[in-house]
Amino acid sequence: MMKTLSSVFLVSLLFSYCSAADFCVGDIKSAPTPSGYPCKPAAKVTVDDFVFSGLGVAGNTTSIINAAVTPAFVEQFPGLNGLGISMARLDLAPNGVIPMHTHPAANEVLVVVQGSIVGGFVSSASKVYLKTLKKGDTMIFPKGLLHFQINARGINSIALVSFSDPEPGLQITDFAFFANDLPTDLVAKTTFLDPKTIKALKGVLGGTN
Amino acid sequence: MMKTLSSVFLVSLLFSYCSAADFCVGDIKSAPTPSGYPCKPAAKVTVDDFVFSGLGVAGNTTSIINAAVTPAFVEQFPGLNGLGISMARLDLAPNGVIPMHTHPAANEVLVVVQGSIVGGFVSSASKVYLKTLKKGDTMIFPKGLLHFQINARGINSIALVSFSDPEPGLQITDFAFFANDLPTDLVAKTTFLDPKTIKALKGVLGGTN
Amino acid sequence: MMKTLSSVFLVSLLFSYCSAADFCVGDIKSAPTPSGYPCKPAAKVTVDDFVFSGLGVAGNTTSIINAAVTPAFVEQFPGLNGLGISMARLDLAPNGVIPMHTHPAANEVLVVVQGSIVGGFVSSASKVYLKTLKKGDTMIFPKGLLHFQINARGINSIALVSFSDPEPGLQITDFAFFANDLPTDLVAKTTFLDPKTIKALKGVLGGTN
Amino acid sequence: MMKTLSSVFLVSLLFSYCSAADFCVGDIKSAPTPSGYPCKPAAKVTVDDFVFSGLGVAGNTTSIINAAVTPAFVEQFPGLNGLGISMARLDLAPNGVIPMHTHPAANEVLVVVQGSIVGGFVSSASKVYLKTLKKGDTMIFPKGLLHFQINARGINSIALVSFSDPEPGLQITDFAFFANDLPTDLVAKTTFLDPKTIKALKGVLGGTN
Amino acid sequence: MMKTLSSVFLVSLLFSYCSAADFCVGDIKSAPTPSGYPCKPAAKVTVDDFVFSGLGVAGNTTSIINAAVTPAFVEQFPGLNGLGISMARLDLAPNGVIPMHTHPAANEVLVVVQGSIVGGFVSSASKVYLKTLKKGDTMIFPKGLLHFQINARGINSIALVSFSDPEPGLQITDFAFFANDLPTDLVAKTTFLDPKTIKALKGVLGGTN
Amino acid sequence: MMKTLSSVFLVSLLFSYCSAADFCVGDIKSAPTPSGYPCKPAAKVTVDDFVFSGLGVAGNTTSIINAAVTPAFVEQFPGLNGLGISMARLDLAPNGVIPMHTHPAANEVLVVVQGSIVGGFVSSASKVYLKTLKKGDTMIFPKGLLHFQINARGINSIALVSFSDPEPGLQITDFAFFANDLPTDLVAKTTFLDPKTIKALKGVLGGTN
Repeated sequence: MMKTLSSVFLVSLLFSYCSAADFCVGDIKSAPTPSGYPCKPAAKVTVDDFVFSGLGVAGNTTSIINAAVTPAFVEQFPGLNGLGISMARLDLAPNGVIPMHTHPAANEVLVVVQGSIVGGFVSSASKVYLKTLKKGDTMIFPKGLLHFQINARGINSIALVSFSDPEPGLQITDFAFFANDLPTDLVAKTTFLDPKTIKALKGVLGGTN
Repeated sequence: MMKTLSSVFLVSLLFSYCSAADFCVGDIKSAPTPSGYPCKPAAKVTVDDFVFSGLGVAGNTTSIINAAVTPAFVEQFPGLNGLGISMARLDLAPNGVIPMHTHPAANEVLVVVQGSIVGGFVSSASKVYLKTLKKGDTMIFPKGLLHFQINARGINSIALVSFSDPEPGLQITDFAFFANDLPTDLVAKTTFLDPKTIKALKGVLGGTN
Repeated sequence: MMKTLSSVFLVSLLFSYCSAADFCVGDIKSAPTPSGYPCKPAAKVTVDDFVFSGLGVAGNTTSIINAAVTPAFVEQFPGLNGLGISMARLDLAPNGVIPMHTHPAANEVLVVVQGSIVGGFVSSASKVYLKTLKKGDTMIFPKGLLHFQINARGINSIALVSFSDPEPGLQITDFAFFANDLPTDLVAKTTFLDPKTIKALKGVLGGTN
Repeated sequence: MMKTLSSVFLVSLLFSYCSAADFCVGDIKSAPTPSGYPCKPAAKVTVDDFVFSGLGVAGNTTSIINAAVTPAFVEQFPGLNGLGISMARLDLAPNGVIPMHTHPAANEVLVVVQGSIVGGFVSSASKVYLKTLKKGDTMIFPKGLLHFQINARGINSIALVSFSDPEPGLQITDFAFFANDLPTDLVAKTTFLDPKTIKALKGVLGGTN
Repeated sequence: MMKTLSSVFLVSLLFSYCSAADFCVGDIKSAPTPSGYPCKPAAKVTVDDFVFSGLGVAGNTTSIINAAVTPAFVEQFPGLNGLGISMARLDLAPNGVIPMHTHPAANEVLVVVQGSIVGGFVSSASKVYLKTLKKGDTMIFPKGLLHFQINARGINSIALVSFSDPEPGLQITDFAFFANDLPTDLVAKTTFLDPKTIKALKGVLGGTN
Repeated sequence: MMKTLSSVFLVSLLFSYCSAADFCVGDIKSAPTPSGYPCKPAAKVTVDDFVFSGLGVAGNTTSIINAAVTPAFVEQFPGLNGLGISMARLDLAPNGVIPMHTHPAANEVLVVVQGSIVGGFVSSASKVYLKTLKKGDTMIFPKGLLHFQINARGINSIALVSFSDPEPGLQITDFAFFANDLPTDLVAKTTFLDPKTIKALKGVLGGTN
């Protein structure tokens, strides 16, 4: 019976010698394309390309924001290449805050796995959507909208966040405004902040000009 | 100054009275389309449309599989409509198993948040990708491929899973084969299982014919 | 000959009685879906559904920003529904500025049609891309990234901008931070701005709390 | 055992009461959206929504083109709604020809199932791709490019064609130029054809002006 | 006149020297990306890149399933690269069966071109959709759902199937369960089949463990 | 304070060292893929990759069509790669005409920036949509449909056109029919034009056969 089935088996092999229809583990040493990285050869793909342990390690929260973001994006976890999804871990120590930011390329869904977190986002219509989340609560942050997360209760809090893209991007507003060489007068004209405030924050964040 | 800014303000309102560019909370009472449900009127949307508490509640694992799946798909969590993402919670008691299944419409990323889980999937080339995951480990299950999760160490285990679609679908192979009126002889011809085995499993799973 | 061709003609009619494959003029009174608005019946569509005159009219620049944005998005120009494109006109009087903002859902391409404009955007890596544009110059502002436009030479300037989505969205950072009821202490914690600065700008932009 | 499995069964029902993730049979009486028609309620869907017999019937080739096109597009076969695919049958009697045309919204793949057909298309670079196809041969006609099919050997020929969209559209160049009220002088200016030729073809195809 | 038109001609060449907008014949020796293979240089593309004769040849049905699948996927027919469509030919001798399987990445539309075939699929809700198809009948099998085809009348039958992706993938359930090294006890736990049945099928299909 | 913020800064760098989520300037020397060209290394990208001056230069209208098209597609303006948008400039001298053509891959939105233009397109149903546009008017030309633009008032006219794809393609009907080696008898059979007319236009446009 094994012999008679062998032609089926060959058809099966024929169909599947190229795993592109199944997955496309990213060869992140090669140049990416608008759809993602070229695929690692299927023959070299092992289960370890689909497993990532980085989200199990607490981020270092000893900074001014008392918080840390640990990404599992395509660069850290190449198995996500082309799959339309990625993740990250948020650690918020007491007083921890993930400052105002956007993900230019992805919707976000956050689940609180420890502690309590205040999540907030602002719509294009400048309406505020604000909620104190307890362990197990899930909150959506739509693509491209300004949002933040803050420790709600003074105990270490952790969240897992999922994104609708392997490379969600992250633009922290303060870094965009104050951590580069964008001239102070241009920042002033385009944000209505006064030059003194701008220069002070540039000093803190390493900006110039 | 407030007066002089008002024309800017009006432009802002003009741009954003329709929130479709920001989000599209699903009106799940209306007929869906291939892109998802029609949007709930923006004026009726509140932060509670973006928050879901169901994943904080343990599923009932007192069944033959000693496991439970708690979905946060678009029907349970209409804020996900059109966002290309959804989630679920897996509870696996000792000996718990999520049987062989596929998600026809989504890639899956699983994170173990308690205990230990064996995850496995099979590619189109019939190659097996198998791993024992500890707390904090993440594993990818590519779209449409057969996969399963099993409690690895005899203690209650929990995982959060994310999907690359608001309606990932779920087809448990045993249910497709044995929990309906698909005639036993057709099941036999198309699966190579013998009629006696098929009829026994139909008996267990409520199938007929 | 006309008679013999008539069956061809009927086939043609058969193929095309529904214009959905050609276009889908938006019925913007109906609820939108994630892919856009339902289509206006093809029989009621005329050439005027595909023509818009609003970009020919100068915007009113007598405001604090000395600038105006005139959109031709799907709400103003329903013929764009489902077509993956939209436009707007920018008028910048001397000292005119379009403040720091993002379009959460679209890439932007700007063409200067009169005067001179400084365009700038900041990448996720906080790198600044800045250029003084003369008449005829085109500049790209990638999706979701913070950017601005400023009158460069003290003469009335005009630009036409195109977007890669019928509803690009517009989030002006200052409005998101200061023109709503987001509590001052949350703004302070998430932006590193001091409460006094925040309250002053809330005063100007109509914000509370 | 059946009792213990029942909670699994309930989960399965929970997951699948909405079939949108599986399919979306078009309710073609309702207004379409850019992504297709709203879905028929899953409870009313039967296997007959997925079966179509129209391609089994020969088209009537007694016309000047000695050919017929029988479509299985979403309007004829609503089960295709949202699936990214459709089909048609071509019948070419001796001397049969499908005149120069484009499908604005779909790539086409043709298989000759009887007789022999000359297929040809012209690229944007005006390069001609021309081939005489025998029974069993398959030919690709890329989206939006002008192409045609001609009976190659004087015997009745049949082809099955597949499209990469449920509504591929069909624009026959001669009908676009000559079967409507586009003024003769505009046709002349935009095609370089002389008015006499244009008026003659308008006469044949029912055009005016 | 030819001279005066030459600038038009040059514009045309300018526009079209790169055929990427027209088509992207796959260079299947290079690494694929999530969107498909890199394009073969346009200058080397001939009509033969768009023509495939493999579907005209009957598959070898002398196996236990008395059936054969002949694919025209992107690996066999690189002209399909990036076009969102592919095809295959099914040959079913008397008693022929294409066993339970899924296409993880594509919807399928089947047309019977000879004989008679029973087609069936099972939805996520475990509902069976079953039909006996005669010559000319078309049946849809939605993406990712378990389905099968069986010779219906004891005569050689042929079908042409179209897919909504150049790489639809194919996962035959029996091969996934029994034709690899997935340990028997894991198969047993995740399918409810008894080890003896599993080992027997592993023996037939070349599986181990 | 700068020191304490540095871990945030590092996270920011970590997130953004790869600019693929932000943009993907095309490396147009490399082979394209179905999603566009590979990305130029982010470290080599400057603001000049996002700025193009070609649309500021009038096209040469001294040809039989008294018109010129100046493209800003991905080949001319690689910054557009992967962004779903491109542009062009139309110059129409008195009597200028852009002949009947299609863009196989993109919707088009035209804005008149000088003079007056008659725009027209024909739907799949052969219905004509025709309008005389004045300065500032915008008109939509849906993807793949035959359309044209003509100088309306005898003065130099200019339009800016935007497309919903970085490579919209351009197929001028006359060039497809008459500027290549497609045999005269095949043109005659598929267009109903008489061989004499065809040969005359082939002569003008450089066609043979």
